[in-house]
Amino acid sequence: MSAVLGENRYGKAEVRLLRVRRHADRHEIEDLSVTTALSGDFADVHLRGDNAAVLPTDSQKNAVHAFAADEPMGEIEDLALRLGRHFVGGPVHRARVRVERFGWARIPVDGVPHPHAFVGDGPERRVATATCAPEGAWVVSGLDDLAVLKSTGSEFRGFPRDRYTTLAETDDRVLATTVHARWRFAALDLDWAAAFAAARHALLETFARLHSRSLQQTLYEMGRAVLAACPQIAEVRLSMPNRHHFAVDVAAFGHAEDAQVFAVADRPYGLIEGTVRREGAPEAPAGIEW
Amino acid sequence: MSAVLGENRYGKAEVRLLRVRRHADRHEIEDLSVTTALSGDFADVHLRGDNAAVLPTDSQKNAVHAFAADEPMGEIEDLALRLGRHFVGGPVHRARVRVERFGWARIPVDGVPHPHAFVGDGPERRVATATCAPEGAWVVSGLDDLAVLKSTGSEFRGFPRDRYTTLAETDDRVLATTVHARWRFAALDLDWAAAFAAARHALLETFARLHSRSLQQTLYEMGRAVLAACPQIAEVRLSMPNRHHFAVDVAAFGHAEDAQVFAVADRPYGLIEGTVRREGAPEAPAGIEW
Amino acid sequence: MSAVLGENRYGKAEVRLLRVRRHADRHEIEDLSVTTALSGDFADVHLRGDNAAVLPTDSQKNAVHAFAADEPMGEIEDLALRLGRHFVGGPVHRARVRVERFGWARIPVDGVPHPHAFVGDGPERRVATATCAPEGAWVVSGLDDLAVLKSTGSEFRGFPRDRYTTLAETDDRVLATTVHARWRFAALDLDWAAAFAAARHALLETFARLHSRSLQQTLYEMGRAVLAACPQIAEVRLSMPNRHHFAVDVAAFGHAEDAQVFAVADRPYGLIEGTVRREGAPEAPAGIEW
Amino acid sequence: MSAVLGENRYGKAEVRLLRVRRHADRHEIEDLSVTTALSGDFADVHLRGDNAAVLPTDSQKNAVHAFAADEPMGEIEDLALRLGRHFVGGPVHRARVRVERFGWARIPVDGVPHPHAFVGDGPERRVATATCAPEGAWVVSGLDDLAVLKSTGSEFRGFPRDRYTTLAETDDRVLATTVHARWRFAALDLDWAAAFAAARHALLETFARLHSRSLQQTLYEMGRAVLAACPQIAEVRLSMPNRHHFAVDVAAFGHAEDAQVFAVADRPYGLIEGTVRREGAPEAPAGIEW
Repeated sequence: MSAVLGENRYGKAEVRLLRVRRHADRHEIEDLSVTTALSGDFADVHLRGDNAAVLPTDSQKNAVHAFAADEPMGEIEDLALRLGRHFVGGPVHRARVRVERFGWARIPVDGVPHPHAFVGDGPERRVATATCAPEGAWVVSGLDDLAVLKSTGSEFRGFPRDRYTTLAETDDRVLATTVHARWRFAALDLDWAAAFAAARHALLETFARLHSRSLQQTLYEMGRAVLAACPQIAEVRLSMPNRHHFAVDVAAFGHAEDAQVFAVADRPYGLIEGTVRREGAPEAPAGIEW
Repeated sequence: MSAVLGENRYGKAEVRLLRVRRHADRHEIEDLSVTTALSGDFADVHLRGDNAAVLPTDSQKNAVHAFAADEPMGEIEDLALRLGRHFVGGPVHRARVRVERFGWARIPVDGVPHPHAFVGDGPERRVATATCAPEGAWVVSGLDDLAVLKSTGSEFRGFPRDRYTTLAETDDRVLATTVHARWRFAALDLDWAAAFAAARHALLETFARLHSRSLQQTLYEMGRAVLAACPQIAEVRLSMPNRHHFAVDVAAFGHAEDAQVFAVADRPYGLIEGTVRREGAPEAPAGIEW
Repeated sequence: MSAVLGENRYGKAEVRLLRVRRHADRHEIEDLSVTTALSGDFADVHLRGDNAAVLPTDSQKNAVHAFAADEPMGEIEDLALRLGRHFVGGPVHRARVRVERFGWARIPVDGVPHPHAFVGDGPERRVATATCAPEGAWVVSGLDDLAVLKSTGSEFRGFPRDRYTTLAETDDRVLATTVHARWRFAALDLDWAAAFAAARHALLETFARLHSRSLQQTLYEMGRAVLAACPQIAEVRLSMPNRHHFAVDVAAFGHAEDAQVFAVADRPYGLIEGTVRREGAPEAPAGIEW
Repeated sequence: MSAVLGENRYGKAEVRLLRVRRHADRHEIEDLSVTTALSGDFADVHLRGDNAAVLPTDSQKNAVHAFAADEPMGEIEDLALRLGRHFVGGPVHRARVRVERFGWARIPVDGVPHPHAFVGDGPERRVATATCAPEGAWVVSGLDDLAVLKSTGSEFRGFPRDRYTTLAETDDRVLATTVHARWRFAALDLDWAAAFAAARHALLETFARLHSRSLQQTLYEMGRAVLAACPQIAEVRLSMPNRHHFAVDVAAFGHAEDAQVFAVADRPYGLIEGTVRREGAPEAPAGIEW
């Protein structure tokens, strides 16, 4: 039997990155997923395991990071073309580059779009749960998957160090999370839609305004703001994954230092959970549904 | 050994429904997922398989459909409370009802919100792919997961019937899909952002305006509108699942006929795919990436 | 501008079905997902909304159900070919049929493969959680996503009927669930691997052996069997979705009655949750992790 | 208004790791996902943003890596307990550690379990697609999501280096992928089940046997083995993501060097796609479905 190598290609899939352009008065962000695929004279690696022509997919990822730092980056079509043309040459006869873009809008604060705090387009859902029993009824409302991100205004310092601590302190990091919130009402005769709007607004505006010293502090202040905004709410529970963004050293690839590109990590992630209660508010009965 | 029954509950999870309220001048929709959980005196069914106290989860689903048809339905908190109170009594000592709400906005047509065409909040993404080679470069752009829905203005009639055909003809159905679109450019020197905005607008407005006789017709007209809106686009490919909504007979549960509730199906779904090309436009080279 | 219709096709995607062949001594099952796609002379429906050539995707789904009932069904390649050839003709010039098959193995009982109880290939995971505090430590172990199915030996009768009840009683149904189990140990000095094996075996064998009068009864007996098998386990918590299988009336399509095909539903689903405790076992401290 | 901090906890979720224990004659692997959650005296960080008590979740992740390298690691219950007890103390009053374990079996080669090549438990599916037309019919079969992993027997060296290349050469790495395979038959009158079994066996055994110099080489040899095993197969298409495993420097945490722990990455991943054809076999007609 004689086998023949047919069409083939290789590349790096789903390079997730955030690009931050820091202007004096405001930041601009691009949240992208980039996939490369190269084809050409690659018989040797398939037939003999000879890698002499095989630019590592890791190098392709690095190139994606570097090109995303270009100023201006342009539209995603520009980025895809620039990258594609970069890869063509030598053994590479054809390069395909796919760029996917996730949408973010500025969080409005006092009616003005915030300079560096953003809320994601996404599958956010409003949720309500009633627990009913002969002795009474209770309502817990909230929301799931509210994505928020600050490109500055967040630090993490002063933490203890044990033998397993390798993390450096930082006074300026990207802070990103997906808020899952539940608030328990102490009353049932109220304007649910207005309460939801007030609570959601308090979450967003607090996230945007507060200079964050830790995600725990941000969580607590967001919970407190919900209580302040809605007198009928007795308790707020928040669960907020810390969506880590790691700065990429694009200066190593010849870029000016202020070209900021961050790798967006999937797992693991910090997970911060906490409850904020109104002093003197009635306790939740056991067995209500959160 | 002696075993003891501990906490337990049962119910129907993720009852997906669309509620349509038809006013003379416009429709209002609510897109919900409802989960019920009942607990109480249910030892007999666990210990002896005696179902005398076990209201079927199917009946709970039907009650969800019926209560969603109430006028007014109120906020999701109202619906959850009404359902929860309905279930409590007899063996049921505690009912928990969770309602999740998916957001939709009216599609603007000529700057005016459309009376019965909607675009979903969701994880829509803009996409661009460049294919580069020594002999040239090509760009395909588009979008994924753009959810749209019309609560009227769609019919499906006149189709052939074979021995496996049981579907009834309809002159008024819910039409819902998630648009996946790709458009191939015949040029590279253009305003990518403006082209994207024009193409997306053409997709939405055509979906909203056109009285649909079939999803194929809608697909074709949406593709044609993109070509008309963007002279640099040579070809449009569309893939549109038919997200089936089945009318629930809430009249059987004592509701007036015009209370319209639809069950939202997951699978299977119709899948309509098609290409619309500009006459005389250059062909796509083999091997470009869609 | 002149637009031209390019390649196009349509069909029904992800028709999920279970086929059961009932022999005297044992059942055979096939768990499939089928997708059809037809292409040919379909310009009229795209250009003018004329459906005269458009066999509904609903009819395609019905044909899938009917052909899956053929005796013998053959391998999935045979089914795909038979369906594809059926659709070709008239306006249909090309039919593509994709069949995906999910694997199931017979549950062994007393070392013998069970005649009608099955365990699914799948992403089952073993799980353990320790909660540690100065005053002590507790371990909860278990498993997630253990898929099991019985093609007979399950009934559901004798339930109450309210105004929303439309469900018929049944003395023979498919019972399918995905087991999520957690068991709390009252000790820490034991053979964890042996305990896991014994508990998993007890879950499977009880599911297979017990004639089920309700999923609650099955849940309770499965929990009891875990307690009986592992003296160090104090408490078992089970969460079991009722994966509904609805019998398809393939007799209406000319098939003999004993050709059994079931539509596999995604949502909604019954959700049964319960706890079984060992009498006299120590209580779980508040705050341990399940 | 006065707000009070309620229950709270924090930790690192979903630390994905592979542990490899290298014995002279065979390797043993554990594929785990670990989640930590700490609670205790953490009011200061919530109320004042004071991190003095907040051991970073990054350090918790590092501890997970270090403890997974313990010899013996024990069962997942042992690991969870050891980690939980490690975290308790000082401000931490309660530590919860959840460990999830993914199953792998040794690939049999010549009927003998392989010393360092494994196949994952998982949602592998067999797939067949028929394309039918008046002029003929074609069948493509295959499988999706067949997870395989080698803990040694894989190198990657001799690749070109550009300005974006930072990857080091390696002569011993973990090679893991999820095989998506399609094979096109040149005939229709054959034993489909036997062909599937032979093709799947060829894929697995080749992956296990071959010392890999690149994933492309492995892909090509796997395709060639399928052709050799099944004379009716004309062409094989393979898509294989390179599931990267990055060695963790547990020696930095005081562990002996041969304790091997790898971080399992989600994204990005290399994606290798290729076709292997039988020389002289008939071409696939345009438009058949893969």
